[in-house]
Amino acid sequence: MKNYFFKKKKGIKINDILHCLNLKKQKKNFNVNDIKDLEEAEKDDITFIHSKKYIDILKKTKSRLIVTNKKYVNLLNKKTKFIEVNNVLLSISKITNLFYPAALNDHFDNDVKPLNRKKYIGMKNGHNILIGKNVIIGKNCSIGHNTIIEGNVRIGNNCNIGSNVIIKNTILGNFTNILDGAIVGKKGFGFFPSKTKNIRYPHIGSVLIGNHVEIGCNNTIDRGSLSNTIIGDGTFLDNQVHIAHNVKIGKNCIITGQVGFAGSSSIGNRVMIGGQAGISGHLIIGDNVQIGGGSGVIKNISSNTKVMGYPAKSIRNFLKENKLND
Amino acid sequence: MKNYFFKKKKGIKINDILHCLNLKKQKKNFNVNDIKDLEEAEKDDITFIHSKKYIDILKKTKSRLIVTNKKYVNLLNKKTKFIEVNNVLLSISKITNLFYPAALNDHFDNDVKPLNRKKYIGMKNGHNILIGKNVIIGKNCSIGHNTIIEGNVRIGNNCNIGSNVIIKNTILGNFTNILDGAIVGKKGFGFFPSKTKNIRYPHIGSVLIGNHVEIGCNNTIDRGSLSNTIIGDGTFLDNQVHIAHNVKIGKNCIITGQVGFAGSSSIGNRVMIGGQAGISGHLIIGDNVQIGGGSGVIKNISSNTKVMGYPAKSIRNFLKENKLND
Amino acid sequence: MKNYFFKKKKGIKINDILHCLNLKKQKKNFNVNDIKDLEEAEKDDITFIHSKKYIDILKKTKSRLIVTNKKYVNLLNKKTKFIEVNNVLLSISKITNLFYPAALNDHFDNDVKPLNRKKYIGMKNGHNILIGKNVIIGKNCSIGHNTIIEGNVRIGNNCNIGSNVIIKNTILGNFTNILDGAIVGKKGFGFFPSKTKNIRYPHIGSVLIGNHVEIGCNNTIDRGSLSNTIIGDGTFLDNQVHIAHNVKIGKNCIITGQVGFAGSSSIGNRVMIGGQAGISGHLIIGDNVQIGGGSGVIKNISSNTKVMGYPAKSIRNFLKENKLND
Repeated sequence: MKNYFFKKKKGIKINDILHCLNLKKQKKNFNVNDIKDLEEAEKDDITFIHSKKYIDILKKTKSRLIVTNKKYVNLLNKKTKFIEVNNVLLSISKITNLFYPAALNDHFDNDVKPLNRKKYIGMKNGHNILIGKNVIIGKNCSIGHNTIIEGNVRIGNNCNIGSNVIIKNTILGNFTNILDGAIVGKKGFGFFPSKTKNIRYPHIGSVLIGNHVEIGCNNTIDRGSLSNTIIGDGTFLDNQVHIAHNVKIGKNCIITGQVGFAGSSSIGNRVMIGGQAGISGHLIIGDNVQIGGGSGVIKNISSNTKVMGYPAKSIRNFLKENKLND
Repeated sequence: MKNYFFKKKKGIKINDILHCLNLKKQKKNFNVNDIKDLEEAEKDDITFIHSKKYIDILKKTKSRLIVTNKKYVNLLNKKTKFIEVNNVLLSISKITNLFYPAALNDHFDNDVKPLNRKKYIGMKNGHNILIGKNVIIGKNCSIGHNTIIEGNVRIGNNCNIGSNVIIKNTILGNFTNILDGAIVGKKGFGFFPSKTKNIRYPHIGSVLIGNHVEIGCNNTIDRGSLSNTIIGDGTFLDNQVHIAHNVKIGKNCIITGQVGFAGSSSIGNRVMIGGQAGISGHLIIGDNVQIGGGSGVIKNISSNTKVMGYPAKSIRNFLKENKLND
Repeated sequence: MKNYFFKKKKGIKINDILHCLNLKKQKKNFNVNDIKDLEEAEKDDITFIHSKKYIDILKKTKSRLIVTNKKYVNLLNKKTKFIEVNNVLLSISKITNLFYPAALNDHFDNDVKPLNRKKYIGMKNGHNILIGKNVIIGKNCSIGHNTIIEGNVRIGNNCNIGSNVIIKNTILGNFTNILDGAIVGKKGFGFFPSKTKNIRYPHIGSVLIGNHVEIGCNNTIDRGSLSNTIIGDGTFLDNQVHIAHNVKIGKNCIITGQVGFAGSSSIGNRVMIGGQAGISGHLIIGDNVQIGGGSGVIKNISSNTKVMGYPAKSIRNFLKENKLND
């Protein structure tokens, strides 16, 4: 993942990492470049494995420094340094926080200023607009009333942002519309439960939205934790859709009202999803899939399939079981 | 449908229509008055048929100019002129756009001005209210903070509009409340998918809301495409309800939290719908129907019936199948 | 229930009550102290019974003045005075209105003023904030842009309120976050249907939110009618969650996106609820319960149970019936 907005703290060393995990320092201290997932980590980055799902990727990782638990230690390449911990994700959360301290706090942006419309070519703007730091807006855009573009936002040309919208940590293509009341780019619902005080997971990802996209009214689209949340070109979302962190939606999809996506699922291109359907986390949905309204999808779906039901099954079986095809 | 707000372009001729469909002009040019559905079209209006559902209505239409495809051409009255196209709805979308060019763009209303409360008798108003053109507000109304009444809105007497509300293209009766964060009257989720750029459907309908109605917090209620979205007298909607374009809800209905309606369904009077239920598109739900929470309704329901389940079936069968009635 | 915010009218006598129910006055007039439910009513309070569910509590009530209907009259203690009515809840609504006239109207708060930040220690504040009467805000809090803290709100220390938030009649603990677009504390969806004009139920309860809680974006959390809506310490709510009146959620619960709670249900501690699940009204869910995404819960669930499905059943049965456990 390219990290667009969150500033990496430089000069983090292995002993800083061990210290933040309450582990013993080691004699030979060395620099660690960044924290990334198995797939994207380079030689000097730290990464992690916590589930057998990722064993195939583990074999190919370039990283030589891996956080893991007892279960996976013996799977590691002999040359790989490892840090053994009890709770991998909690440790990764702490290390991420070490590299990206600004990604944890997600309070309102206090650095916004009233829009200075002279700065923008062809801008059509409403009343009471606030614009944060590190915001770029293209030509011929419109922004509605009371809308807040917090920090770290890039908007392409010919985009239309509605009223009462809140955006942060987001990159928009061209000709993309965001309708009234949508909230885009806040941190996702990721944390480690704890009796006294849940430990929040830093979200260093962004929301990447393509060209010719439409985001419906009152949608909530969270940014990614260690990867980005992505919505492809030509995809349209109806009202009251919820997209959790790290979800990737392909191109030319049609997502109707009140659909919800749990975290980290991947949706192909030209996927159509009926109203109120829910997609569980960590799933892979192929291209040209059609998901009936109200479905609850809890397994991967191959391309060119029509499904319906809770749990979602082939639409033929759904209709047969419910005697609807006579 | 009475068109309340969108201005019809005058002087549209048959050859303008053929031209916008990329069809050959004809020798005898003549005026076309308006575009309407089969039921409402008069002699000089253009209309369309694209589904066998409407064959009965076709027999009774007064229109003498019908857009259709190969399948239905032979069903037409011999005296009827027709335009044969591949995609009827796409062609109708283009023709609608010809008659009503202002109904396509649904960006924020830039013609609003801060409320001038002196204009209104008995008005109780919050801070930062914006009022558009062609807005009428009755006596003894209250409007909350940050609320935007965009263009084309008529509000009756004794209505209460909450804070952070956005309304446009809507007619409200008397004694009706719209609660905080509701968004009423934006265009519906209607468009034609296309690889490069989806083609939006112009929405020339309005939202018509009766007397003594309550619209809940964060609701989204879209205006109609070729007809109106209607909510009858005495109907109450709970929070986070989504109503798509062209839906008609009768009188004295009770719609609880997070219920969603897909487009163009008709709901009778005194219908009760439990939380999170979903109603598919183009259905007819009778009077006095009770729909259990979480149901997914995908077929018409006759009056005086209780249903539950996904797909919704008689509540007796639902309980029996799930062994809940012992 | 402790009534935090609504002022009780003093000096209400039995004949005022009989009069508001259109019943004949009685000779011996006497003071009635308050209106409470069976469990909480003291000797001089009026209370009610309308369902056999509450017969056990009836036996223990301290109240000596009970509103009920024919069905339950013979169950009453001989020494208990009773008022027999046809519709118990409607009568109770009228009596509640007599004691608490300000709890019925829930229009926007016209008594707010722009935030005077000097009044608050360590406050970090956005633009365009409105603060109502009887609002207390602790140390080191932040409040985002366009947020409206209406009347009757107490916020603890170190809380973070997002932008476009609306709060009223709510008490927040310390270290609690409310994210953008949430609406907390409005009256619930309680009323008596009537052909001409539904009769609204006065909501004299509040919303009580504990320490270290997170309320997600665009959530709607209604205050209680005769009791409070409660969210316990350490509980986190994702986006687009709806919580109806009188719901009690325990400590350290995890409620994911688009979950909905109908009124008056009680949820234990450490309960985890997957996305889009719905919990019917008046249920009791134990501690450590796990409810799968998309479930529809319509029965009580005992502690330490995992359920899934619609209707929700043990997760083992759900998987077996759907052949998902092979």
